[in-house]
Amino acid sequence: MTTFEIDFEPIGKRVVANREMSLLTAAQEAGIAITAVCGGVGICQDCKIRCLSGQFSDIQNKERDTFSAQELAEGWRLACQTYPQSNGKIEIPPESMSTAQRLQIEGLIRDVAVAPEIKASDFTLSPPNLTDLRADWERFVEDSGLKLDEGQGIALPVLRQFSEKMRQQNWKGRVIFREGVGIIGFLPVESAYFGVAVDIGTTKMAAFLVNLESGHTEAKIGAMNPQIAYGEDVVSRIAYANQGDTQHKTLQIKLVETLNRMISDLVGQVGIKPDQVVDFVVVGNTAIHHLFARLPVRQLGQAPYVPAVRRALRFSAQEVGLVGAPGAWVYLPPNIAGYVGADHVAMLLAADLNHNQSTSLAMDIGTNTEITLSKEGHLMSCSCASGPAFEGAHIHAGMRAVPGAIERAQFYDGDWHISTVADQPPIGICGSGILDVVAELLDSGQIDSTGRFTDAALRLVDHPKGGVIILVPAALSGNGNDILVTRSDIREIQLAKAAIRAGVEALLRESGIEAEEISRFIIAGAFGTYLHLDSAIKIGMFPNLARERFSQIGNAAGAGAQQMLISSQSRVEAEAVLSKMDYLELTTNPEFSDSYIDAMGF
Amino acid sequence: MTTFEIDFEPIGKRVVANREMSLLTAAQEAGIAITAVCGGVGICQDCKIRCLSGQFSDIQNKERDTFSAQELAEGWRLACQTYPQSNGKIEIPPESMSTAQRLQIEGLIRDVAVAPEIKASDFTLSPPNLTDLRADWERFVEDSGLKLDEGQGIALPVLRQFSEKMRQQNWKGRVIFREGVGIIGFLPVESAYFGVAVDIGTTKMAAFLVNLESGHTEAKIGAMNPQIAYGEDVVSRIAYANQGDTQHKTLQIKLVETLNRMISDLVGQVGIKPDQVVDFVVVGNTAIHHLFARLPVRQLGQAPYVPAVRRALRFSAQEVGLVGAPGAWVYLPPNIAGYVGADHVAMLLAADLNHNQSTSLAMDIGTNTEITLSKEGHLMSCSCASGPAFEGAHIHAGMRAVPGAIERAQFYDGDWHISTVADQPPIGICGSGILDVVAELLDSGQIDSTGRFTDAALRLVDHPKGGVIILVPAALSGNGNDILVTRSDIREIQLAKAAIRAGVEALLRESGIEAEEISRFIIAGAFGTYLHLDSAIKIGMFPNLARERFSQIGNAAGAGAQQMLISSQSRVEAEAVLSKMDYLELTTNPEFSDSYIDAMGF
Repeated sequence: MTTFEIDFEPIGKRVVANREMSLLTAAQEAGIAITAVCGGVGICQDCKIRCLSGQFSDIQNKERDTFSAQELAEGWRLACQTYPQSNGKIEIPPESMSTAQRLQIEGLIRDVAVAPEIKASDFTLSPPNLTDLRADWERFVEDSGLKLDEGQGIALPVLRQFSEKMRQQNWKGRVIFREGVGIIGFLPVESAYFGVAVDIGTTKMAAFLVNLESGHTEAKIGAMNPQIAYGEDVVSRIAYANQGDTQHKTLQIKLVETLNRMISDLVGQVGIKPDQVVDFVVVGNTAIHHLFARLPVRQLGQAPYVPAVRRALRFSAQEVGLVGAPGAWVYLPPNIAGYVGADHVAMLLAADLNHNQSTSLAMDIGTNTEITLSKEGHLMSCSCASGPAFEGAHIHAGMRAVPGAIERAQFYDGDWHISTVADQPPIGICGSGILDVVAELLDSGQIDSTGRFTDAALRLVDHPKGGVIILVPAALSGNGNDILVTRSDIREIQLAKAAIRAGVEALLRESGIEAEEISRFIIAGAFGTYLHLDSAIKIGMFPNLARERFSQIGNAAGAGAQQMLISSQSRVEAEAVLSKMDYLELTTNPEFSDSYIDAMGF
Repeated sequence: MTTFEIDFEPIGKRVVANREMSLLTAAQEAGIAITAVCGGVGICQDCKIRCLSGQFSDIQNKERDTFSAQELAEGWRLACQTYPQSNGKIEIPPESMSTAQRLQIEGLIRDVAVAPEIKASDFTLSPPNLTDLRADWERFVEDSGLKLDEGQGIALPVLRQFSEKMRQQNWKGRVIFREGVGIIGFLPVESAYFGVAVDIGTTKMAAFLVNLESGHTEAKIGAMNPQIAYGEDVVSRIAYANQGDTQHKTLQIKLVETLNRMISDLVGQVGIKPDQVVDFVVVGNTAIHHLFARLPVRQLGQAPYVPAVRRALRFSAQEVGLVGAPGAWVYLPPNIAGYVGADHVAMLLAADLNHNQSTSLAMDIGTNTEITLSKEGHLMSCSCASGPAFEGAHIHAGMRAVPGAIERAQFYDGDWHISTVADQPPIGICGSGILDVVAELLDSGQIDSTGRFTDAALRLVDHPKGGVIILVPAALSGNGNDILVTRSDIREIQLAKAAIRAGVEALLRESGIEAEEISRFIIAGAFGTYLHLDSAIKIGMFPNLARERFSQIGNAAGAGAQQMLISSQSRVEAEAVLSKMDYLELTTNPEFSDSYIDAMGF
C-alpha cells in the first residue's frame, strides 16, 4: 500500500501513514498524544486538528456537526475521521494534545509592590429626564467625580459602549482608567480587572492573566508561535515579511489570532469576561516585537541591522486587534538592539540585573541567545546565533519537549540510561536530552575533542554522513524505530555551544573581567531551565564556575512582563535600562570569530 | 410592450422605460442629464451607473473592459449598454451627471488668522552605519531638533512608515505634527500639507481641501449622502441603525466610502498625494455626527433624546477609515443637543453669532431646521422638524435642485412664469420653486388662508385628493408630462413653514424679545440660499422684517468647518459655544404646539 509522510506541527514529528489509517491512529502509533476520549469514533470531538496541506478523505457529517463552514474551509477536521490521500502537514492545536506540551510558563517573579498604571473607581449617576437633558458623557464627567483632562478623557471605542452600558447597568458602574491619560473601559460595579502579560518567543508563547488589584497571576497558558509556519527562525520570517505588505501583515495576524485564543482560554479559566482584561504587556525579541506591532523589519534583516524603534511603545490594543476592554492599551518595553529585544529587558528586570551592583551575567538561550553582563550598575549586552538545535530542530531524532521526548541521558555501566518527558516511551530527543547525550559521549570517550565518534562508541553503525549511534533501539522505543544520534547532531551542538561561549567571552573581554569574577550566572528560558549544568559545563558551553553561582530562573521574560503589568515603577525601570546599556555587536567584532572557532571543540 | 418603473437616485426621479430602451435613453427622455460623450455607443465609458435593484440585460464586453469583476459584482454598468427587464432602482454617481447637481458648497468664510493646530518642519538625518547603530526612530528624536513628549511622540501607524520613508527619501523629510501632542506623518522636504473640511448634511455632503499654510481652499466637491438609501431622514436612519451592529456600522461605512471618494477627487484636482491630507474637520447634525463616529444613536431616537456626547471629539482618522496621512486626526466640534448638532456650531462660528452682541437669529433650514437666537452674548437654540419638502421630497412633482428643476415661479399676466436650474426644460419642482408656487398661489388668490384651492385657480383639474393645478402642461415640459401641484404639496409646505416659524416664535418668547428687535436674520444652507425672501415672508415662514436685515449666507456649516481647519482658535471658540448656549426643547414645550397650529395657516 502506498504510504504517505504526514508532518505533525507544532511538535515537529514526521509520521508514516496510509489511506487506511486515520490521522488519529497514525499520530497515536507514532507516540503523539492527541486527545480522543471516545476512542476515535467521532463522538467526543476532542481530536480537532487542522490540515495545512495535502489531500485527505471527504468531510464527514460528524465533522459538519463539529465545525462551522468557515472552520471547515480553514481545514479543521476531526483526526479520527480523516484519512490521508497524499503527503501532508497537520497542525495539532494545544487543546487537542492529551498531555500539554511542556511550555516553560513559570518564572521567578520578583516581589514588587502592586501599583499598576490602571486604576478603578465605582460611580452612580442619575438618569436623564425631560428636565435634565445632559448628554450621557457629560453626565458622567460632571457627576462621577473622576478628574479628566479635557479632550483626552475617553477614546472613541470606549465612548461607543458607554450609553448602552449605562442603560443596562442602571446608571451605575466601575470606570477603569489610567490617571491623567484616559479611560480604558466601563464594567459593572466592583468588577475585578485584569491584565495579560505575554511572552512571545520565536517558537513558544506564554500568556499570564494577572489580577491588577491583588497582583496575583490567576491563570496561564502556553502555545506555539504560529509564525513557525512561515519560517523557523526570525531571519526567515523577516525574509517572508519583506515579500510584501500582505505577508508582513499575515505574520502579525497569526500572532494576534493565537493570542486572542489564549486570552479567551485565560478568561474562561477564571470565569471573567474579555472586557475585564484592561491592560497588556507584550515582550519578545526585536524582530517578534516589530512583527507584532507590524513595524518594518527590512532594516533588521540587512546590515547594520537597526531596529525601527528602541524606546518603549504604548498603543491601543484595538490597533493590533487584541481582544479586551475597548480602551485597553498594549505596553511594549524597549528594545536594546536589532537582536536584543524587549524580552531581554523583561528578563533583566525579573532577574533584578538592572539594579544589581555585583558582577552578574544573565542569558536567555534560544535560537538567538541574548546575554547581558552587569558590572557596577553598568550593563553590556550581545546576541549570538545559537541556532534551533536546543529546541530539537536540525537534530536527526530531535523533537520539542513533548511527552516521549528524551530529556535526560546518562551513560554508565556500559549503556545509556534515559528519562523522557511525562515518562512516556521514548520517541525522540529534546534539547536538554541532546545536550546530555553529547556531554556523556564526550565524557565516556565515545567522541573525541573534535566531535568525531571514536571506536569506543556504543552501537555505532555506518552511515553516509560519518556514522551514527543507536541511542535507543527500535524494540525499546515508543514508535518502533531506532532513535539515532548522528555526527551531524553533534556538530549542531558544537556550533550552538560555541556561539554562546564566544558571546560570554566577548562580553568579559570588552568589560575587562575574568570569568571567575562572575558572582551570579543566570540562565533564563525554557531550555535554560531544563538543561543540566554539568553537561553544559562539560561541553564548554558555560565557564566552569562553582555550581552555586548559577541560577536557572525559568521564563524570566514572562515574569518580567507580569511585573510590568502590576508595577508602573517597573516600566520606568525597564525604560531606564536603555541608558545604562551598551550593546556589543558581535558580527563586526574580529575577536569574536576567533573565539567562536576556539569554542567549537571540546 | 411591458413598461417598467425605474427610480433614478440620488436625484429622486421615477422614469418609465421598457426592454428596448437603454437606461441612458430612458434617463435622457425623462430629462435626466447623464453624461455620454460618445452618444451612447459604449465607447466613452462616461455613463457609469450602478444598478441597486431589479433585473437588467446581460453584461456586455464593453462593460467588462470598463469595470473590474468587483465593480460588476457591485452592480456597476454602462447606462447605454443596460436594458431594464423589471422595475428597478439606479444610482447615478456624480461624475456621470453631465451637469453636476447643484450642491451648495460655497459659503461665507470669515477672515480668520491662519494658525492651524498642524505644524511642519524639515529635517535631515545621518544614515545608520556600523559605528552608529541607533534605531531609526531614536535617530530622528535625537537629531531632528523636534521637541517630543516622551512616549507620546508618535502613533504606531506613523512609526510603521518611518523606516522605509527615510531610506526612500535619503534620510531627509518634512515632519507634520501637532505641537505637544504627536506626529501626524512624514512627507518629502518642503511638501505642501492640507486639511479636509467636511459638512455632512442629511441629504448632501460637501468637502473642501484647504492648504494649511496659506489657509486657501484649493478644491471642493459635493456628493449625496449615501445614507439616503437607508432612510430619507435621520429618524428612519436611527431606526435602521438600531436594528443591529451591522446596520449601525453600514451607515458609517457608507459615509466613509463616499468621503474617501471625495477626498480622492479633491487630491486629484490639486495633484497631491493622499498623505498630504494631514487633518480633518467633520461637521453634521447630532445623528449624523454619531453615525459618522459610530456612536450609539438609540438614545437619540427615544425621549428624552439625549446625545451620547456633546463635547468636541478628536480621534484618529484611521479609527473611522478616512484616507489621509497615517497619523491624521479628525476633529468634530461639539453638539448642542440631540437635534442641534456640530454643524450648527460650525454655522454659528461662520456667521460670527458666537461673538456678536447684537440681537441676531441664525437658522439652517433642512429636514430639521436648527435655529439660534443670540442676545447680548447669550445663545439659545432649538430644533424643529421642518421635513424634507424643501428638498423636493413628499412633493408630487418634487425633485432636488438638478438641471430641469423649477427653482423660481411667478404668477402674473394670468399665467405662470418659471425658471429652471441650468435653464433646462422643466421636469419637476425643487424646494425654492415650490415655495414660490405656494406664495404666488396665495398672493393671486388661487388658494385661501387654509391652503385650499379656490375657484380662481388656473388649470385646476379634479383629483381624488382635492384637486391639482397643472403648473406646466405636458407640451411645455421637458419629459412630456404635466407638472402638477397638488393640495397635498401645499399642505407639506404649510407644515414645514409652520414648524420653522413656530421655532422662531418659541425662541423669541423664551428670550422675551419681539421679532422686530432682530437686527440680523441669517439663513444658512443650500435651500436657505436659493429661497426667495419675499415668498418666505409672504407665506409667513419668516417674520416680516426689513429685507436688509436678512442674510443668506450659503453653506455656513462648511465655511465654519474650514475655519476650524485653519484656526485652532476657532476650535476653542466652537467649544466655548457650549457654555454660552441654552437649548430649548420644543417637543415638551406646550406653547410651541399652539404656536405651530397658529402658523399653519396663511
